[in-house]
Amino acid sequence: MIFLGIALLLPIPFSIYYGAVDLHSLIISSIISLVPGIIIFFKSPKKIEEIRPKEGFFIVTITWLLFAGIGSLPFVISGAIPSYTDAFFETMSGFTTTGASILSDVEVLPKGILFWRSLTHWFGGLGIIVLTVAILPLLQVGGMQLLKAEVPGPNVDKLSPRIGDTAKILWSIYIFLTVFETILLIIGGMNLFDALCHSFGTMATGGFSTKNASIANYSSIYIEIVIIIFMIIAGTNFSLLHKLFQFKFKEFISNREFLFYLSIILFAILLISINIQNNYQSFFDALRYSSFQVVSIMTTTGFATADYEKWSSASQLILFCLMFIGGSAGSTAGGIKVIRIFILLKYLYNEMLRLIHPQAVIIVKVGNYSLDKKVLINITGFFIIYVFITVFSTIFISFFNLDFVTSLGAVAATLNNIGPGFGLVGPVENYSILHDVVKWYLSLLMVLGRLEIYTLLILLTPFYWKK
Amino acid sequence: MIFLGIALLLPIPFSIYYGAVDLHSLIISSIISLVPGIIIFFKSPKKIEEIRPKEGFFIVTITWLLFAGIGSLPFVISGAIPSYTDAFFETMSGFTTTGASILSDVEVLPKGILFWRSLTHWFGGLGIIVLTVAILPLLQVGGMQLLKAEVPGPNVDKLSPRIGDTAKILWSIYIFLTVFETILLIIGGMNLFDALCHSFGTMATGGFSTKNASIANYSSIYIEIVIIIFMIIAGTNFSLLHKLFQFKFKEFISNREFLFYLSIILFAILLISINIQNNYQSFFDALRYSSFQVVSIMTTTGFATADYEKWSSASQLILFCLMFIGGSAGSTAGGIKVIRIFILLKYLYNEMLRLIHPQAVIIVKVGNYSLDKKVLINITGFFIIYVFITVFSTIFISFFNLDFVTSLGAVAATLNNIGPGFGLVGPVENYSILHDVVKWYLSLLMVLGRLEIYTLLILLTPFYWKK
Repeated sequence: MIFLGIALLLPIPFSIYYGAVDLHSLIISSIISLVPGIIIFFKSPKKIEEIRPKEGFFIVTITWLLFAGIGSLPFVISGAIPSYTDAFFETMSGFTTTGASILSDVEVLPKGILFWRSLTHWFGGLGIIVLTVAILPLLQVGGMQLLKAEVPGPNVDKLSPRIGDTAKILWSIYIFLTVFETILLIIGGMNLFDALCHSFGTMATGGFSTKNASIANYSSIYIEIVIIIFMIIAGTNFSLLHKLFQFKFKEFISNREFLFYLSIILFAILLISINIQNNYQSFFDALRYSSFQVVSIMTTTGFATADYEKWSSASQLILFCLMFIGGSAGSTAGGIKVIRIFILLKYLYNEMLRLIHPQAVIIVKVGNYSLDKKVLINITGFFIIYVFITVFSTIFISFFNLDFVTSLGAVAATLNNIGPGFGLVGPVENYSILHDVVKWYLSLLMVLGRLEIYTLLILLTPFYWKK
Repeated sequence: MIFLGIALLLPIPFSIYYGAVDLHSLIISSIISLVPGIIIFFKSPKKIEEIRPKEGFFIVTITWLLFAGIGSLPFVISGAIPSYTDAFFETMSGFTTTGASILSDVEVLPKGILFWRSLTHWFGGLGIIVLTVAILPLLQVGGMQLLKAEVPGPNVDKLSPRIGDTAKILWSIYIFLTVFETILLIIGGMNLFDALCHSFGTMATGGFSTKNASIANYSSIYIEIVIIIFMIIAGTNFSLLHKLFQFKFKEFISNREFLFYLSIILFAILLISINIQNNYQSFFDALRYSSFQVVSIMTTTGFATADYEKWSSASQLILFCLMFIGGSAGSTAGGIKVIRIFILLKYLYNEMLRLIHPQAVIIVKVGNYSLDKKVLINITGFFIIYVFITVFSTIFISFFNLDFVTSLGAVAATLNNIGPGFGLVGPVENYSILHDVVKWYLSLLMVLGRLEIYTLLILLTPFYWKK
């Protein structure tokens, strides 16, 4: 809460520069967060007992809920988003780096508020990197322990120093890339404000824009290329990016997940470009718009340069499929994650091999690394629960008079932390028309997806609360 | 082929009684099947080596393909279905007990042909019972070996005598129930021809009707109740029905799969009845139509008394979900099967338990029977490949200018062996409008689903064909 209180002060320079109409909302919100935060800090015991996995799940989940709960205050206090439900949805969408919005006109918002909106993305990304690379592997959620071997930092077994060191390394990379992208966007003609906000949205794979038309607003191939490249980087495992910064190019290039990730992107771009070429004047235009949309969706960012709902249903279905695949594990991207899909495909191939050779011992390998059976079981479990939650959620929200495509699209876009979906919540629409219950439910889905399902889900089981 | 040749002669009495316009097509088709069949029979070696799993997959798959390939001849020769693609689709739909049709008017067909069409269902069901209860468990497909313990017949370890004895017992039950339903339908006012055809369609959970309006044609609550009851029976494990015939009521009632199967049906009926009550004049009417449709879809039969596409999207989504759940293992129903869903849910619960107690040894239990880890792995693999095939197939057929709902609906309705889907292939439409490639592809999906995915899929892998 202390951290959040300070973070809420960061938009103040922009707020003052652009007329200070929203200054009070930021200061009040900051105080609401700081005061109880400081009191709790001084009242709480100095020495904390060892944190077990059980507490770990609770701490992680409550952090996201608290951030969204307090982080939504500036929207309400400034009057930018009068309804608390809407403000909570928007803020959770920010901190989970989803990018789903209930705003139909963002350009009328006061600049301080607009900056805070993009900043929630950036802080969300900051949290996610350390969560997926350092915390979730220790909690053994959804097979994320397979990332354990790749975590940078000194090889200490104790939780806290390792998390601290890992975080420092990865955050440096995150900050460096954000600054770098901001400079490139300023060169492309954006002002500092827009460049920063869009860099936040890119590096967090969030997708909030400061323009109603999103990136289409700029009609600039240069800006599109910059954002495409940085979306791809943001969807890459940050531990792997660390290897790049250490000049370990060979390890970088031979990484199975990264290669599979790039292959899917290229294959999808090609397929969609061919499929939609009659929608555009030239194949180059089709390639341009499909490249941006494929990367934006696959990395779960959600920026838009084209209304993909005008494309053929085949192209839309491919995008829908990419939503679920998502980016790489250990990146800021959401979705099931490329590495899990890769392992599942290998696993299915082995299952068939086993049918013909029932006696053979068959091991799933990723590169030279053979996969522990336990990790495999975690990953299959993760995939199956993902499917069950998608199906259940789609049915649930369809009870609020939503059609098939909208229901499924909204679930896919929030659970996978993308933002724009299909049907009534497509890239040129927004989530404002939905029933309040649906908005709360989708906010829950954003956290559920963002925290790799189990972290939150486990808190909802009766056995978690048994002594 | 000899068997099929004889089967093709069975509709002859009806053909002659109703004017014999299609008599020649049945006789010619029978000869085409009989002659090479007899030649192969006498030319083939008398003593067959032991059949390994590898050959098992081939024999099972080729049987279904051959039956559909030859079984479609009467449709083409009689001129009832001029296109061979359409005739193959219709026949495969019959033998896989799917019930998807390319015919917009079945009532104009000659009666011999119409009888053959329903008979393909019945023979398909005959094959499926013995396949799922006796053969697939030995091939260890998709965890079906969990049924091994339940197979009736003498406890001999050798394959052939066991299959033979099991088949005799289960087929007796199947025949008895078919006769029984036929009598009940005749009492309800159907003539012998319609009663037999509808009994074939029910017991095989197929869904071909002799009326254009399907069961809605009769507007008879008595007929609807009879068919509902027999659909539920046909969707029950036939080994379990065998226990009922042995008066082992306690085993019958305490069977986990059966209880879960009934619970899902009742819950879905209740939910949909409440949801659609404003579509009808009374709650009783809503209950009546939802009961029939829920049972028809869950058992993957596909008979219709109402156009469920006029219901709310929530109700349609529930039906869509039931399509995938399907009936019980060891029944004539398709889909993923209730027992697999039951085990997956238990498995996911245990996965969460394991996160809190990482050291605990947790075993998945079904009733008093603890599940072998291998079976569990087979089942998770089965589910995952089912999802992948659904997604891939939906994208593939959407390339032929089909919308999202139609594509997904057609895949769900054929892969799960139901028949009517959603969108352009809903319960009051048919599959005739689809592109030929799509028809062939969906025919493939019918076999794929019917043979529990792996049986056919394995033949498409390169390593299957390696020496």
